[in-house]
Amino acid sequence: MAELITVDDPADPRLHDYTGLTDVELRRRREPAEGLFIAEGEKVIRRAGESGYAMRSMLLSAKWIDVMRDVIDRATAPVYVVDPALAEQVTGYHVHRGALASMQRTPLPAAADVLRAAHRVVVMESVNDHTNIGAIFRSAAALGMDAVLLSPDCADPLYRRSVKVSMGAVFSVPYARVDTWPGGLETVREAGFELLALTPGERARPLDEVAPHRMDRVALMLGAEGAGLSGRALAAADELVRIPMSHGVDSLNVGAAAAVAFYAVATGRPRE
Amino acid sequence: MAELITVDDPADPRLHDYTGLTDVELRRRREPAEGLFIAEGEKVIRRAGESGYAMRSMLLSAKWIDVMRDVIDRATAPVYVVDPALAEQVTGYHVHRGALASMQRTPLPAAADVLRAAHRVVVMESVNDHTNIGAIFRSAAALGMDAVLLSPDCADPLYRRSVKVSMGAVFSVPYARVDTWPGGLETVREAGFELLALTPGERARPLDEVAPHRMDRVALMLGAEGAGLSGRALAAADELVRIPMSHGVDSLNVGAAAAVAFYAVATGRPRE
Repeated sequence: MAELITVDDPADPRLHDYTGLTDVELRRRREPAEGLFIAEGEKVIRRAGESGYAMRSMLLSAKWIDVMRDVIDRATAPVYVVDPALAEQVTGYHVHRGALASMQRTPLPAAADVLRAAHRVVVMESVNDHTNIGAIFRSAAALGMDAVLLSPDCADPLYRRSVKVSMGAVFSVPYARVDTWPGGLETVREAGFELLALTPGERARPLDEVAPHRMDRVALMLGAEGAGLSGRALAAADELVRIPMSHGVDSLNVGAAAAVAFYAVATGRPRE
Repeated sequence: MAELITVDDPADPRLHDYTGLTDVELRRRREPAEGLFIAEGEKVIRRAGESGYAMRSMLLSAKWIDVMRDVIDRATAPVYVVDPALAEQVTGYHVHRGALASMQRTPLPAAADVLRAAHRVVVMESVNDHTNIGAIFRSAAALGMDAVLLSPDCADPLYRRSVKVSMGAVFSVPYARVDTWPGGLETVREAGFELLALTPGERARPLDEVAPHRMDRVALMLGAEGAGLSGRALAAADELVRIPMSHGVDSLNVGAAAAVAFYAVATGRPRE
């Protein structure tokens, strides 16, 4: 059972993992460098633990002790009990979800490893918005995608906002970074995947005509909101696919487009 | 051509349409009562005009005059040129999109009228988040839904945030409010629509098995994030449908779920 430690000095070095949480640029650098990520709120903290991540510490206000009792009982890391005002002073915001946990990162697997058992893979290029990354992981998990590959410049799936928006799906869908881009896509092709690039361009074939659900192994490539996939990424694909659009609308939000494409790729079945 | 009027008093009554834009509760009451809505940014202002909404006035900083020159030339309403600091003082935020327009609302059509020419209709119940409303309209437009019906407690599609997130799709997709709920759904059924209720429940049939794309007229019912459709709404449906889920994930974000369902309902075709 974890030790409950009341802390009343915002400068206490034991709270270092939780300082300046609202400074995105700072945290973006610090968290991977220090090997941690922040899980926020009861559900997400539980899911991180259930997914095998080790807890470094937990920070909560007194009224959350009962809610988190079982997590505290199983934890071996210290649990810091603080006043809500002190939590706000340390983190920079009002922690209305009441509990934060600092979790230990694990080394990312190699791309080849996450591909081995997968049949439906998402490949993201330059998706550097934490909300979009989280939303895409959530849909990927729900709609049966087996793994995610990220280009080197994609945002961190374990950043607090990504984790929250994903509802913890970043813990359950295996992911890896592709070291060289787009050269590393060769690994995907060599593993037997058809590379389908999602793009609104007229050259692209409508997704439902391509019938990706009939393919054994599909890697669906997505670009960032606005810019879409780069020319180099499009050139590296086996086929360009698009979601048929109406009403002269030029594009869907990347989260909506991803969800539609996952449905078409992963759960699509020939209809009667 | 519109008159360019420089205003340097934040209390000038001519700026009344733009006061307190960050006070959601205030604006939510005021805008329908005063018969206006706010279009923000070049694209959205243009789309509102192209969709036939009359302009009451425009508010912009000097550097946006050139960008909006053609809109100003066509407008008959007054154009107020203000300092960015004054715009912030009046509206309550930094107007980084540079231009705002106050547009005249038009009376909403009756539900029966928007149904007449439609084959694919979205019916929303209690969706009271402006971002979700906007996202659903955007996907509805892109994926070929013909019209939207709203339960009495749905949020306003013409609220500034809804308009922005929809990328102007709230102007192009006809919509109406259903006066009585869920009793008003009878109108939809009488117009020849099959009412499909989207719900994650186990009783529901997988969307791709229902083959809604084969139906002549489909009304797809969506509930709010979290709560989903009410028991009464589910009871009023002809059929419960669900998106097949994987990985033990219990639900998609309502925007993602809507996009997938629109794709299945509207653009789905029998595959080879």
